[in-house]
Amino acid sequence: MNKLKNDLLIRAAKGEDVERTPVWLMRQAGRILPEYRAIRNSLSGFKELVETPDLAAEVTIQPVDILGVDAAIIFSDILVIPEAMGLPYEMIEKKGPHFPRVISSAKDVEQIRLAEGPELQYVYDAISLTIKELDGRVPLIGFAGAPFTIFCYMIEGSGSKTFSKARKVIMQNPEMAHRLLEKITASTINYLKGQISAGVNLVQVFDSWAGILSPETYREFGLKYIDKICEAVNGEVPVTVFSKGAHFSLSDLKNTRCNTIGLDWNIPVQYARSIFENTKTLQGNLDPAVLYGSGKDIASETKKMMRSFEGCRHIANIGHGVYPDTKPEAVKMFIQTVKEYKHE
Amino acid sequence: MNKLKNDLLIRAAKGEDVERTPVWLMRQAGRILPEYRAIRNSLSGFKELVETPDLAAEVTIQPVDILGVDAAIIFSDILVIPEAMGLPYEMIEKKGPHFPRVISSAKDVEQIRLAEGPELQYVYDAISLTIKELDGRVPLIGFAGAPFTIFCYMIEGSGSKTFSKARKVIMQNPEMAHRLLEKITASTINYLKGQISAGVNLVQVFDSWAGILSPETYREFGLKYIDKICEAVNGEVPVTVFSKGAHFSLSDLKNTRCNTIGLDWNIPVQYARSIFENTKTLQGNLDPAVLYGSGKDIASETKKMMRSFEGCRHIANIGHGVYPDTKPEAVKMFIQTVKEYKHE
Repeated sequence: MNKLKNDLLIRAAKGEDVERTPVWLMRQAGRILPEYRAIRNSLSGFKELVETPDLAAEVTIQPVDILGVDAAIIFSDILVIPEAMGLPYEMIEKKGPHFPRVISSAKDVEQIRLAEGPELQYVYDAISLTIKELDGRVPLIGFAGAPFTIFCYMIEGSGSKTFSKARKVIMQNPEMAHRLLEKITASTINYLKGQISAGVNLVQVFDSWAGILSPETYREFGLKYIDKICEAVNGEVPVTVFSKGAHFSLSDLKNTRCNTIGLDWNIPVQYARSIFENTKTLQGNLDPAVLYGSGKDIASETKKMMRSFEGCRHIANIGHGVYPDTKPEAVKMFIQTVKEYKHE
Repeated sequence: MNKLKNDLLIRAAKGEDVERTPVWLMRQAGRILPEYRAIRNSLSGFKELVETPDLAAEVTIQPVDILGVDAAIIFSDILVIPEAMGLPYEMIEKKGPHFPRVISSAKDVEQIRLAEGPELQYVYDAISLTIKELDGRVPLIGFAGAPFTIFCYMIEGSGSKTFSKARKVIMQNPEMAHRLLEKITASTINYLKGQISAGVNLVQVFDSWAGILSPETYREFGLKYIDKICEAVNGEVPVTVFSKGAHFSLSDLKNTRCNTIGLDWNIPVQYARSIFENTKTLQGNLDPAVLYGSGKDIASETKKMMRSFEGCRHIANIGHGVYPDTKPEAVKMFIQTVKEYKHE
């Protein structure tokens, strides 16, 4: 592995001293960049980009060159896992993912296979290419969906406002739910280990639908499996957990074996700090809608955010994926403000 | 007005002593009941039901007769307000509401009219008919959408995962946003006063999309207008505020001039109690997915929920609208368990 010339992200994740706060953005590789859209528009669809290593590597590196972020994150999709387990999906323009087949019985759960790793070689190839191209300029982040979020897609077959089918399975057949979650967890661990072997320097687990569960249900059907993933990989690289909407589980997240916790923009920073007491690095949490504002407003809101993390382990980010119609200039203003921020 | 034979809800809302905790369910009048579906299927669509007073009154009363709830809530839709202001909508089966015209400029905001009240006579007629039919058996709840949620629909034209168009207006043109929110607020006050004149005994304000904002933005663009509504009507009937997802604003909600606060199922009850310190009645908050479980599980989870509110002003409910595929027997088990619950 190339030695990292900028390892701010890794040191911040481990709670080591840093000269300044590292900064990157969720969904930084994507539609906000005209350079991304040019590549994307030349292809048949989103999945072709995910599955073509040299193009995935190219769009992964674009924000490093264009925006000056302190980390790259591999361009991919959390839904490659259910696909590798035997449930292919389509990405429908303006609608989102759709799975023609879903899990609807305990028999389906038994029949679904584990993702062993080789099915996802195209992701590892994209990672290897990216690592080579980056040449140590910044760390590369790998990622996967959290088991509960993948479970939701495998049962619902698409996004949902309530995920009531998935939650019905949890209520009516908890054994079946646990069995499926175990298979997803084992597959995800294989996958993340493959990413680490290919060279990623840190991994992030995204639990997009955590916020739909009650605290008790999330503890049993969500965090338990996230913690298994953390246990399996955090001896190798630092792990970040982003449980979107799980404001009710911060004290449970404190006990998860990860290094960094992602915070939504609507979690009050002081509240999170009082719970984590600097035992984890906190990542976030500018309101992504702030990037619709003027340069002056972006700078002032970013400084306010930076002040709220003063004296605490911190990786600067926004509190959710950057919205596709955000102007690159706005993102640059955010990044520049973080980089120039002087701690008091 | 008929004297109420069962005024548990009203006394609980005011913080007065009650013999037992009152119980009702958000969306109790609706698809969970075969008697509702029979009426709904005989019509051209959802809006015909909303706009036909004798049928709206009939489905409003169904859950009182069939389920034994301690309150009726008028069958209507929060989107009658934008329609009365000049933006008609369609309700598209399985997709949700769609507004052919939306607000996209300050000029649109100036041109949109206030809802004065008479445009909504069909709602008042449904209320009068319901009050007559109920004959004081239980109180009737009136309702409206909160200004921020209505604002989102008027700008987006439909539901959204991020409401980024609405949030962009807030960031880029806060004066325009405030002007529209003021017009919605004035219209909503007219509307709720009309409902009160027609006989409702309590009103609830639903802020479905509160959870998408940051604490600061919600304070300025959400709660400020909710409080104006509370101020205007709470001398006449008790007011309940349900800011869905606004876990970050509980201490601000404490200062709102309402009687009752609705709680999501994922807000820890102890946390809410520590903030409100019994200055408000708390309404909620069983996980609606619990109603997919067995009768035994429903009873045990309902008792657990009741215990968590022990010694505190409480109206029992679920933490969100009941899911359409919930069995009436499950709802009855929830209601029966609340009614038989003995406080320790």
